[in-house]
Formats: sequence, structure tokens, C-alpha cells
Amino acid sequence: MLKILERGYEVEVKILEDVMKANDQIAEDNREMFTEKKMFVINLMSSPGSGKTTLLEKTFETAENIKFGVIEGDVRTSLDGDRIARYNIPVVQIHTELFGGACHLDANMVKKAWKVFPQDTNIDLLFIENIGNLVCPAGRSLGEDKNVVVLSVTEGEDKPAKYPLIFRLAHVLIINKIDLLPFLDINVNEIIKNAKAINPKIEIMELSAKTGEGLEKWITWLEKKATTYK
Amino acid sequence: MLKILERGYEVEVKILEDVMKANDQIAEDNREMFTEKKMFVINLMSSPGSGKTTLLEKTFETAENIKFGVIEGDVRTSLDGDRIARYNIPVVQIHTELFGGACHLDANMVKKAWKVFPQDTNIDLLFIENIGNLVCPAGRSLGEDKNVVVLSVTEGEDKPAKYPLIFRLAHVLIINKIDLLPFLDINVNEIIKNAKAINPKIEIMELSAKTGEGLEKWITWLEKKATTYK
Repeated sequence: MLKILERGYEVEVKILEDVMKANDQIAEDNREMFTEKKMFVINLMSSPGSGKTTLLEKTFETAENIKFGVIEGDVRTSLDGDRIARYNIPVVQIHTELFGGACHLDANMVKKAWKVFPQDTNIDLLFIENIGNLVCPAGRSLGEDKNVVVLSVTEGEDKPAKYPLIFRLAHVLIINKIDLLPFLDINVNEIIKNAKAINPKIEIMELSAKTGEGLEKWITWLEKKATTYK
Repeated sequence: MLKILERGYEVEVKILEDVMKANDQIAEDNREMFTEKKMFVINLMSSPGSGKTTLLEKTFETAENIKFGVIEGDVRTSLDGDRIARYNIPVVQIHTELFGGACHLDANMVKKAWKVFPQDTNIDLLFIENIGNLVCPAGRSLGEDKNVVVLSVTEGEDKPAKYPLIFRLAHVLIINKIDLLPFLDINVNEIIKNAKAINPKIEIMELSAKTGEGLEKWITWLEKKATTYK
């Protein structure tokens, strides 16, 4: 009784293409500017509630030798920005609610955020924490060096197949909340298999941002990346 | 060290307004058509992996007196549609990947899906399972009678504050996966408080689609809704 509907309505493809092209140009400018500053930039993406901010908190507690900065994206509230600021990390919060509630960050928002960033800080590694969303941030470059996607094991094994673009563009996949595995009917190997089917080159790290289990591989990766332009 | 950036770039507000207006018109037509068919329609929304499809499966197992139908929305794959079809429920799967990977369903997609729906079926209650996304489906009417949002307890207490529009428009909030509460640092009362702060009228149901705990209230609500136009 299953029918599949794939086509049947017209989208304004041209408008979307123009928007994407303009975004890519600004992203290129951002990238150049960030590289000049000798700063490695990570675009951190996930569903809502996958644990991006908790991962950042744990990272700041652990990797004490890296000088971090954060551009924080939310539709509304500064809850995440406040959490980051407690670590004495420079952070700029973007609220997209006043831009029609945009469901993703774009290169221009990042450019503007960087303009009000404390310019005297000497940052090794800038995290851009994107809006919690597995669809819209994908393919909208911000000027980052690497895309990192966080997926919580509670979200199920099928997500890489259902949201392929974001997993295809990810350099690293963090499988988070592995401390909950004993209480779930989830096979991590299935998640890995599904992610590799979409993106054979993806680097996968299983960890719990809450307990710190498995964090070493992530920290080692960051330490290496933080010196990329030094 | 927290700075907040709220304005600073121009969006094509006019284009968005036109799109929304066109959508609302088609949604009205859908609503009229559905009401004529004496069918109650629910727009089911959530983050990826909150348990929408598992909730539907459990609902079909439990509410045997209701004749259900499903329009299933995914960027890609028919995994959810296949799961529904096993219950011998009429289902049409929409793939948005070929429409630029649209991050939400719109009224026109639903209209087209309904056209290929088995028309000889006598449905009491139609579920439209939206794309897993807490931002973009909000405010895009499909012609539904009620909006139901599913939030998994694993996603954290702050989600109603961070994604206010979808919670403001929801008639019912299902707080799912309560079987995991003993293993999380999550206070359900905080979720409820945050949801009520955004939307004082929201009806809240705490349940586990996996174990069936707390399902009665949901089923009773559906049974009542299923006879609305009879």
C-alpha cells in the first residue's frame, strides 16, 4: 500500500542557486580571513539535543592547551552562549529569529559575527555551532576548514540514510551519548555502516560528552588541527 | 565575553512572504477537501529521531477501531513508509530530495500526495509525518486540524525555549522516551514548564512509544478526534 511521490511541484530553483552562489563567495572571503588569522575553523552541526554544547564544554575542560573561540548560532535564547562564556572563551551569539527564524547559519551571519568578535584574542581554533538541524545547514559553507556532525545514539541507526547530504559533507562524525547504549535497542555498528555507505571517507569517533568516555581521539584530532596554520 | 548579534543582513522577506501566502491558500483548499472527506488530519512534527514513526506504529497496534492513513515525508529513503505499510495502513511517501532537499513539507506536496492516495479507503484520521526538523515545518500549514510535536526526553529541557515557534503552534506536545529518564539528568517538569511558558494552552502527554507507558491518554485523545466530522 506504499506509494512514492518524488516530483510534482515547481521550486524556484534559480533563486536558491543565486542565494547559494552568493553564500559560497562570502564563505570564500571568510576562509581567507580565518586562514590569515592562522585559525582553524570547525562547522559543528547536528539535530537539536544531540549534545553539541556539552561536547564543547567537555572539550574546553580537557584541551587546556588550545585557545578556543566560539560563534554560537541559535534561533533564539543565549542559553548555549552563556554556557560557553562560563569557560572564559570568547563567544559571539547569533540569533536567527529576527532574520525570519533562519534554520541554518550562513556565511554572511558568520562574517558579521566575526566583525564584533574580540579582535585582540589569539585563537587557535574557532568552533561555529550551527542551528540544531540535520537538513538546512548542509551544503551552506561558512568558511570552515572542516565539517563535524554530532549524532546521538538515541536518534536511531537510520539517520545517515535519511539525511544523506550532511553526512556526505561531514569530515568527522561524532557518535555521542554512548553511555546510554545499554538502555537502547541500537547497534552502533549499524550507524557506522550507514554513515560509511553515504561517505566512505568519514572519520568516526564514538564518545560520551557527558562521561568523557572516548574523548581522547577527539582531543588528539583537535590538537593536531589547532596547529594547522601555525 | 558574550556578545549577541541579532541583525545585520538582509533577507528577501518579500519572497518568503509570497511563498507563505501561496502555501496558506493551498493549505485552506486541503483543509476543505479533508473536511469534506470527514477526515481529521494531524501534522506530526519533531527533531530527527524523536520517535514519530515508533509512536505511529504503537498507535496502529493499540487503536484498532480507528481507520488511519499516513502521508509520510522524508528527504530520502522509504524506511518510515515501509514501516507504516506493514500495518496495512494506506501510506504515500513524499521524497523531498528531488525538490532541492526541502527541509519541511508544504501544502502543495500534501495536495499532490493526496491525489495519488488510494481514494477508495475510508479514513477517519490522517497523519502527516513531517520531515525531522524543529525549525522549518513550523508555521507552514498543510491543511491539518491539529499540530502535534514529539520531543524526546534525551533532547534536553531547553528545546521549547530554543525553538519557540513550533511549540507555540503545537496543540499537543508528546514527551517521548520517558523509559530513559532513570538514565538521564533530565527533569520532565522543566520541559513542561518551558513548553507552558511558550504556549500556556499546549496539551502535554508523557509517554514511551517503545514500552507503551502513558499511551492511554494519547489514544483516548485520538479516538475523540477521529469522530470529529462523523
